[in-house]
Amino acid sequence: MSDTFVGEAFKARNDGLKWAKADPGVIPAWVADMDLPSAPEVVEALRRRAEGDLGYPSWLDSPQGGPLAEAFAERMAARYGWEPDPGLVRSYSDINQALQVLLHVWTAPGDGVALHTPAYHPFLGTLETMDRPLRPIRLVPDGDSWRAEIPDLSGCKVLLLVNPQNPTGRVFTRAELEELAELAERHDLLVISDEIHADLVYEPNRHIPFGTILPDRTVTLTSATKAFNLGGIRCSVAHLGSPGLRGALDAQPPFLFGSANVFGVEATVAAWRHGDAWLADTVALLDRNRRAIAEHLPAGVTYRVPEATYLAWLDYGRPGVAEQLEREAKVLLSDGAVFGPGGETFVRLNFATSEPVLAEILRRIATVTP
Amino acid sequence: MSDTFVGEAFKARNDGLKWAKADPGVIPAWVADMDLPSAPEVVEALRRRAEGDLGYPSWLDSPQGGPLAEAFAERMAARYGWEPDPGLVRSYSDINQALQVLLHVWTAPGDGVALHTPAYHPFLGTLETMDRPLRPIRLVPDGDSWRAEIPDLSGCKVLLLVNPQNPTGRVFTRAELEELAELAERHDLLVISDEIHADLVYEPNRHIPFGTILPDRTVTLTSATKAFNLGGIRCSVAHLGSPGLRGALDAQPPFLFGSANVFGVEATVAAWRHGDAWLADTVALLDRNRRAIAEHLPAGVTYRVPEATYLAWLDYGRPGVAEQLEREAKVLLSDGAVFGPGGETFVRLNFATSEPVLAEILRRIATVTP
Repeated sequence: MSDTFVGEAFKARNDGLKWAKADPGVIPAWVADMDLPSAPEVVEALRRRAEGDLGYPSWLDSPQGGPLAEAFAERMAARYGWEPDPGLVRSYSDINQALQVLLHVWTAPGDGVALHTPAYHPFLGTLETMDRPLRPIRLVPDGDSWRAEIPDLSGCKVLLLVNPQNPTGRVFTRAELEELAELAERHDLLVISDEIHADLVYEPNRHIPFGTILPDRTVTLTSATKAFNLGGIRCSVAHLGSPGLRGALDAQPPFLFGSANVFGVEATVAAWRHGDAWLADTVALLDRNRRAIAEHLPAGVTYRVPEATYLAWLDYGRPGVAEQLEREAKVLLSDGAVFGPGGETFVRLNFATSEPVLAEILRRIATVTP
Repeated sequence: MSDTFVGEAFKARNDGLKWAKADPGVIPAWVADMDLPSAPEVVEALRRRAEGDLGYPSWLDSPQGGPLAEAFAERMAARYGWEPDPGLVRSYSDINQALQVLLHVWTAPGDGVALHTPAYHPFLGTLETMDRPLRPIRLVPDGDSWRAEIPDLSGCKVLLLVNPQNPTGRVFTRAELEELAELAERHDLLVISDEIHADLVYEPNRHIPFGTILPDRTVTLTSATKAFNLGGIRCSVAHLGSPGLRGALDAQPPFLFGSANVFGVEATVAAWRHGDAWLADTVALLDRNRRAIAEHLPAGVTYRVPEATYLAWLDYGRPGVAEQLEREAKVLLSDGAVFGPGGETFVRLNFATSEPVLAEILRRIATVTP
């Protein structure tokens, strides 16, 4: 394999403005979408729409994004035994927009937000920009997995739960979720539950929607964009379990936060209704990849095999490794420092790529001594 | 032609939830998009994207919507001799979202908004929902066209200009725009200028961007969705000429109002850069159609041939005609009453359809005595 070989989608990233940091010889494995084609059922639905009616959809003014809400409710019931009310669904561009909207209407500057750390860095950015102080729930190593150290949550208004967790790949157990629910009750917290990685959980782990645990306090956020590799379509859903939150949102101008686009809805509905065979194959590939990493990392790198996600969270025990890996090994991973407290000695590897590309990434990583 | 013949896109409308009012024998000519296919260059760009990378675009976090801003600036320069700064462009779902965002950050409940009436009804809805009292600038018949009766604008914070105007199809002249600019200066108004119909102006009329008249007070809103028949893509732009407004927007959380989707950007850029041959053919058809209406309306209906848009604003001199036309003539037009003060005796006909369908619509209309 040539030193300049990169996966097709990673390469597209690399060509663009935002990812221009990497030189052409570097394999970028940092941006969190997949270096894989999307489900053929989704591509076909998008092609049909491109060749069909591009005008106003019949559901133009629907806050539910038309068929999006029903497709979400069906999927939750079929996969997770949860029967959410489609009437409580609202559509947003993406999860981070939805988070900013929810914090905007429900909290004020200075209100604390509890969040497991290390954490998905755009959420840290949102909390900082909006001046909602982070109350970190530290995830600490616990054998092959991670355990949460829960601090005093008084003064918090929101628990921002990311489950499955990014970057550790933890899938919280029922016992853990019930403990969080108890805390949310005790401290009167709104729970914003980002479940975007739910479809990427590996056996025998099980995703449990937080909406089944504490329905009246929970806003569930999800999207097909992660599991089906559709980051560009800008289509996500929020299920507003909390009646107070619904009231706060309904008091806003009806189109202030935008509305769903036909391609985003088309792709999401196709993915959720017709994409599961592709998804099963993809999860099987990711499952092989997450295990392959364990076999090929150099000694001295600590790797807890993720229970979900296509993200490997690798501890080198010292900071600055991402920069060294890019310079010396020509692979571009995410620097763990951006994921907040506890991430400094880590790098995050996106392993959603073909097995040959992953093998090449791992070969390059192994050339750098931990 | 069979009584149940309807244009293809109109028919698609008719099949949907929102437009279900019409029975299958009725020709719907009310919803303001076209009963025509979109430009082949746009369809091709969308198909290429459907078959290509659906992941995060390289411009993911760009408030300008990536290439959208440059394409907008190029088009304004090429067609209208205006050279807006692409750095001042922001992307929104649609014009009505942009309007709600601007009113939300710049005005408070009770602040007056001046707007020519009769008016695009979703804007009336926005003003009512947001409790920004309408200060109507009445358009009154003036020979073959319309003239504005400008009221005292003290107490107003915003002039919401729709140019070309909907539903009358007026294209405001330089003298009229300069009079409005003078009023905006005198009363310290922000001008929100909706120019979505600019590409649908008929010779010898000329579209003059308000941003060339009063750059520092103007926010210009536009979108390719109207002239290129792309209502479903949810992609519009706001050019923020007003520095104060820019400051107010920049103080908001960065993703609160959502972000551009790849299909919307792809379609818009293709339309603006490669769609002008298609647009010229389409405008030629619409030009023939607007004249054909004048020749086939029954005596007693007053019709001022529009200077822009594909909307014919027909005065029957009595209210309730839309309902009668639907019931007796099986054509569904918009009831003028929804366009606010001065619209009660009118109906609005969407003539963006093929000549045979328009002929059938006009044949049906002629069966109802004014």
